[in-house]
Amino acid sequence: MAPDIGASNDQTIWSYGKARSTVKGQPLDSETIRKTDAYFRASMYLCLGMLYLRENVLLKEPLKLEHLKARLLGHWGSDAGQSFTWIHMNRLIKKYNLDVLFVSGPGHGAPGIISQSYLEGVYSEVYPDKSEDARGMQKFFKQFSFPGGIGSHATPETPGSIHEGGELGYSISHAFGTVFDHPNLIALTMVGDGESETGPLATSWHSTKFLNPIVDGAVLPVLHLNGYKINNPTVLARVSHEELEQLFYGYGWTPYFVEGSDRETMHQAMAATLEHCVSEIRKFQKQARDSGKPFRPRWPMIVLRTPKGWSGPREIDGKLLEGFWRAHQIPITDVASNPSHLKLLEQWMKGYKPEEVFDKTGKLIPELKELAPKGNSRISANPVGNGGIIRKPLDLPDFRDYALKDIEPGVSLRGSMINMSKWLRDVVAWNMKTFRVFGPDETESNKLGEIYKAGKKVWMGEYFEEDKDGGNLAPDGRVMEMLSEHTCEGWLEGYVLSGRHGLLNSYEPFIHIIDSMVNQHCKWIEKCLEVEWRVKVASLNILLTATVWRQDHNGFTHQDPGFLDVVSNKSPEVVRIYLPPDGNCLLSVMDHCLRSANYVNVVVADKQDHIQYLDMEEAVEHCTKGVGIWDWASNDQGVEPDVVMACCGDVPTHEALAATALLRENLPDLKIRFVNVVDLFRLISPINHPHGMNDRQWKAVFTDDKPIVFNFHSYPWLVHRLTYKRPGQHNLHVRGYNEKGNIDTPFELAIRNKTDRYSLAIDAIDRIPTLHNTAASVREKFINAQLAAKVAAFDDGIDPDHIRNWTWAYPRKKKNGGV
Amino acid sequence: MAPDIGASNDQTIWSYGKARSTVKGQPLDSETIRKTDAYFRASMYLCLGMLYLRENVLLKEPLKLEHLKARLLGHWGSDAGQSFTWIHMNRLIKKYNLDVLFVSGPGHGAPGIISQSYLEGVYSEVYPDKSEDARGMQKFFKQFSFPGGIGSHATPETPGSIHEGGELGYSISHAFGTVFDHPNLIALTMVGDGESETGPLATSWHSTKFLNPIVDGAVLPVLHLNGYKINNPTVLARVSHEELEQLFYGYGWTPYFVEGSDRETMHQAMAATLEHCVSEIRKFQKQARDSGKPFRPRWPMIVLRTPKGWSGPREIDGKLLEGFWRAHQIPITDVASNPSHLKLLEQWMKGYKPEEVFDKTGKLIPELKELAPKGNSRISANPVGNGGIIRKPLDLPDFRDYALKDIEPGVSLRGSMINMSKWLRDVVAWNMKTFRVFGPDETESNKLGEIYKAGKKVWMGEYFEEDKDGGNLAPDGRVMEMLSEHTCEGWLEGYVLSGRHGLLNSYEPFIHIIDSMVNQHCKWIEKCLEVEWRVKVASLNILLTATVWRQDHNGFTHQDPGFLDVVSNKSPEVVRIYLPPDGNCLLSVMDHCLRSANYVNVVVADKQDHIQYLDMEEAVEHCTKGVGIWDWASNDQGVEPDVVMACCGDVPTHEALAATALLRENLPDLKIRFVNVVDLFRLISPINHPHGMNDRQWKAVFTDDKPIVFNFHSYPWLVHRLTYKRPGQHNLHVRGYNEKGNIDTPFELAIRNKTDRYSLAIDAIDRIPTLHNTAASVREKFINAQLAAKVAAFDDGIDPDHIRNWTWAYPRKKKNGGV
Repeated sequence: MAPDIGASNDQTIWSYGKARSTVKGQPLDSETIRKTDAYFRASMYLCLGMLYLRENVLLKEPLKLEHLKARLLGHWGSDAGQSFTWIHMNRLIKKYNLDVLFVSGPGHGAPGIISQSYLEGVYSEVYPDKSEDARGMQKFFKQFSFPGGIGSHATPETPGSIHEGGELGYSISHAFGTVFDHPNLIALTMVGDGESETGPLATSWHSTKFLNPIVDGAVLPVLHLNGYKINNPTVLARVSHEELEQLFYGYGWTPYFVEGSDRETMHQAMAATLEHCVSEIRKFQKQARDSGKPFRPRWPMIVLRTPKGWSGPREIDGKLLEGFWRAHQIPITDVASNPSHLKLLEQWMKGYKPEEVFDKTGKLIPELKELAPKGNSRISANPVGNGGIIRKPLDLPDFRDYALKDIEPGVSLRGSMINMSKWLRDVVAWNMKTFRVFGPDETESNKLGEIYKAGKKVWMGEYFEEDKDGGNLAPDGRVMEMLSEHTCEGWLEGYVLSGRHGLLNSYEPFIHIIDSMVNQHCKWIEKCLEVEWRVKVASLNILLTATVWRQDHNGFTHQDPGFLDVVSNKSPEVVRIYLPPDGNCLLSVMDHCLRSANYVNVVVADKQDHIQYLDMEEAVEHCTKGVGIWDWASNDQGVEPDVVMACCGDVPTHEALAATALLRENLPDLKIRFVNVVDLFRLISPINHPHGMNDRQWKAVFTDDKPIVFNFHSYPWLVHRLTYKRPGQHNLHVRGYNEKGNIDTPFELAIRNKTDRYSLAIDAIDRIPTLHNTAASVREKFINAQLAAKVAAFDDGIDPDHIRNWTWAYPRKKKNGGV
Repeated sequence: MAPDIGASNDQTIWSYGKARSTVKGQPLDSETIRKTDAYFRASMYLCLGMLYLRENVLLKEPLKLEHLKARLLGHWGSDAGQSFTWIHMNRLIKKYNLDVLFVSGPGHGAPGIISQSYLEGVYSEVYPDKSEDARGMQKFFKQFSFPGGIGSHATPETPGSIHEGGELGYSISHAFGTVFDHPNLIALTMVGDGESETGPLATSWHSTKFLNPIVDGAVLPVLHLNGYKINNPTVLARVSHEELEQLFYGYGWTPYFVEGSDRETMHQAMAATLEHCVSEIRKFQKQARDSGKPFRPRWPMIVLRTPKGWSGPREIDGKLLEGFWRAHQIPITDVASNPSHLKLLEQWMKGYKPEEVFDKTGKLIPELKELAPKGNSRISANPVGNGGIIRKPLDLPDFRDYALKDIEPGVSLRGSMINMSKWLRDVVAWNMKTFRVFGPDETESNKLGEIYKAGKKVWMGEYFEEDKDGGNLAPDGRVMEMLSEHTCEGWLEGYVLSGRHGLLNSYEPFIHIIDSMVNQHCKWIEKCLEVEWRVKVASLNILLTATVWRQDHNGFTHQDPGFLDVVSNKSPEVVRIYLPPDGNCLLSVMDHCLRSANYVNVVVADKQDHIQYLDMEEAVEHCTKGVGIWDWASNDQGVEPDVVMACCGDVPTHEALAATALLRENLPDLKIRFVNVVDLFRLISPINHPHGMNDRQWKAVFTDDKPIVFNFHSYPWLVHRLTYKRPGQHNLHVRGYNEKGNIDTPFELAIRNKTDRYSLAIDAIDRIPTLHNTAASVREKFINAQLAAKVAAFDDGIDPDHIRNWTWAYPRKKKNGGV
């Protein structure tokens, strides 16, 4: 049973020759084959044009050096397979009036995609200077991978694209995101065999266990077995046919193979196979919808095995090109220095017979033009590909109605997250077709289980009797939970980019898993701002909890608040970071995020019970300002403060307030200003972020000459990075998390990082030279109290009621007067 | 064919009752079954003890509240399955004299693992106070998930563990890393069904395509179908048996099922199955080794389906516990407040009959003791689990022999990377069993292809005839390339942690994909420093190229130098960041990294041709200092500089030198000091990193009152974050990358970020008030030159020889005198 390496099939058996396919049949007449292949040739010609030409775009003159771009960039390898697939879907769109989006996993095969958009006329509609004539074609060619032009992937400038395909691995999860709650949509998704090796792609095949054929559309994947990556064979192209088939059966799909290089038979095979797949999809959907019984079929998929760089020269100077990794990028690199290669390129391009497919002006001839669908049925014109067009604002319940009321400020201990979840429950209930919650198996743990009352967890795997015991599973749920941050994030991106709204909730420590995905999404929406026809989409909302200050017990591996550093590096036009200090602020911030567009909003909030400070009116005002002096915790009214106690984040706020209380109890003459930051980017200069305070505002809040003890949620350097230009920044002493692996109590974790009340109070004393003598005994007292708390904790394994026992000194005036 | 959801098998069919297994046979006699189960009971008893008890550890007195820990932490769910598997492997280790490492994917099932180490005596050898008696057991229980104790995962304190299992997804790739070049090792790897949903795990099953049965050992995965995650069923436990089987066939494995809950029959089934798998492994290895012909068999694996929380109560108060997600963490949470539940816990624990398995002193009875192997054959004593023990320093060729010689400093254009690759080739050749290079299909693209002359790319997929055309594939290669950064990094971590050396090379923009993995590795080696018996392992070396400043053409998605921010947040004890400015510095830095231990070294270097500056002697001196004034580029000798031109990174150095040349040519009276930084952490205070300069050193290099124009490779704020405490930091003006998506030339990319020669020169002028009038015309000239360069670039699509055309002003003295 053990296949001997070396004794295996030659690729020729698979990639070359007449088509071999699972689905038989010859649905195309010879005339249709002829036209389809002409359309394919037009597409391939455009691809090479984009890679090479800046002049003489129809090759009416002999090709000369000056017609070439000086710097050759772009990819050829996967263009043919992607164009081929797109073209064959066109026929079915027309025949069955389908609603189809194309997701290009190998987005570096952009010439294939862009050529389709140009051929079906959308490109010229969107960019009138790239008109359907030789002049427009010249601009169309030159702009590709050219300074001031467009990139070499399926970038936001590409009509119909919601997926750039620069960083690989997310085509399937993005595609599923687009079809959730879009019952008529088919996301035709090219998956590169290179991309297939990535982890995120490998697990995203399981997305079918979360797709309900009644309310959702379908993803039709085309695994493109091109055979090679940049410089290596691909794994899936080098396993046995049997293994490949079993793998996809195992993933829950039915793979249909289409293999070969002979174009005539390949056209028949692809037409028959694609039609069979579409019919199956429609059959499954009809079955589920007619019966009202959702089920998980083995959804169809296609394995398309064609030579890499298909339709190019097989060999050049005895070196393999087509069907080898050399076809990956620019197929002939030395056309400028090698006249015979220039000639070869010309012959190759002319082999596509541009004069047959374009008329004299350079426009696609009418008999080919009519192969594509019309209007918004054209794949590259699908509104889903510009999701902002179909986005409607959420119908949001008034968050004020969910306020934590009857709280004694600074005393009442309540769960901010569990309270907010009631509002979120109703957000779900009020927007049952346009809002979903995503998370990697942590929604309940994150105290958001209330949501299940409005929408359970989508589950299309098997059901067991025991699920009735609090399983909260349903085929038509609204919460998407799979233990893959990559897949959850990919689904959410697809869902948002196709015009809907959503929220990802996750443990803070593991959100780094999707650093690069969030980076890429930031780049996508940043770039979209520059593309005029792109309409803004809903923000990508990320709610982080199980935060570093509550990860004492899970230990060091669960302590990493550094996602904020990653996000802070992204364009200020698209990122927002909020750290609400209490429950009413959390409600206010979340409402703001769900109303916003085109941002990545990151909200960090603890899920444990917390002391509450602000009523709703105050919370709204505080969150609107983003940073504020809390007068009721300060005693510097009318005078200059001796010290500013500042904080950002809920646990840090709690400890900073406790420190303030300790100081005021013990050193009543000390003038303290208490500042809380909700909106992290208020700290930065307005030059660097639109939310930034100017220096005048900064000075009014933080002073420019008083010591500031700043208790921060994350790594302390982030605050220094944001404030390095601020007047008096040398007075800024930031405390936050530092890497050190111990098993601690939460309070000891704070002590070790000097973010606990005692350390902060001592810090304040140490920063005020005039206090050094007078406050020495108070300082000593704090040290002893800290030590006592520490010892008690170590003895019992728990904190001695550390959350509450500072409230005795809490100085806030009650609403009804009194102190 | 479409399985109807809802009409599926009840879990009872699978998880409960007598064993059902693929492999039949009853290899155990009844006496062995009795002993094995007693050993299992001892293990389970210890697990519960760790979760609950701080006193009365043998339950000799009735269980009371004061015997319990005050805060209950830890996981029960996967403990039984992991212990069960480990125990059955013990029998085979003894029978066949096997060399076995245990990798615990669900590392939160640590009680299972730790209990095994305690039972086989290793725990007490390593931690003598946790002795094999009641007193030791009491400490052993109390320390678990307790302040000052150990964490709730398979943390570095766990003997035999190289894999914490905190963040999920890497068990298989880590396991493969350990067995590469360890031909006799079997890595018995528990894979959680939750973990299986992660992307990194899902693709890591393909690792078999890179394992050579002659030179490598074997991974024996046990997929633990526990059925549930924290709060959800798992995907793989809710697909049909057929799908599951096909999936693993498709991945290239032969899955053997062991399913049930009846312990007696399960012991037989597991014993038979595990023995069958071990036999198959040995058979395949023998076949390959005897014949000298490596092949890729369908390696065996086990699917172990047992109830989550196996051997616990099935229900408590009508709510499911065993076999349900409620068994995930602490199985009964309210023992302190509910006396009947306290009683239940006591009965449950007593059900394991501690008095039968431990003697009166608390020691495992001799007849059970002898079930475990002896000495280093004990799994938890395997030296591979403390890889530093077996690590030997690399035999390194003298990097000075590979120096770029005969260079005209500041003029010669050479490839630093391609030159270094010759040294790397010989590092591979000289260390053919202890050094491997890893990378996601980019080694050739990264100009490191020279390495293939010493060791080709490991490939155990099918071979095609065309591979002879430059494929560089071989079963016994030394370069590991799969298009999965996760898998490559996981392999490297496993390889290094098991006592060998390696290097990961990757594109800079996509290294964020493994942010979280690098974070976790940093935490692992940081923690190891505190575990006395852990011996340091080789550093994890990450070489980044295709850097942001050369990603103009691939565009915005390929521009992200922020990995350095992520790494900078980790413990200064374990992270190092180097940005060598030229080829000889790159050699010096790489040599240093490959000699070092227990670090994560990040080296950033461009792969394109670069102007070379330093001969080897100078390079070694410069890299040793980590930061230095380049006298030959400076003209402030004997006087105070007017401005400091500083830089870090090769492209930034190039532009900063060009700016310096421009300034000196045009403003000869201006006194300029040129500073280059190789070792990024030299910038930070020595309080925060051992490499940090003190303020005196800082002042000697950077001054404390002169403007510093600092050209930086990455996001500029990182330099501000590192230097916020420095004297004169307000004079520090950092230029670096900012997010903005355009298609540019490399030079325009620099201009847009103000990191080009002209912008830097203008910046310098602007920072010196006294120059404003006198240098106005020079400033104008620079602006015009910049504009001209820009226009030319946009017209042609390439830069007008931007790399070289500053050298005319280069002021360096040649060695043989002259200017």
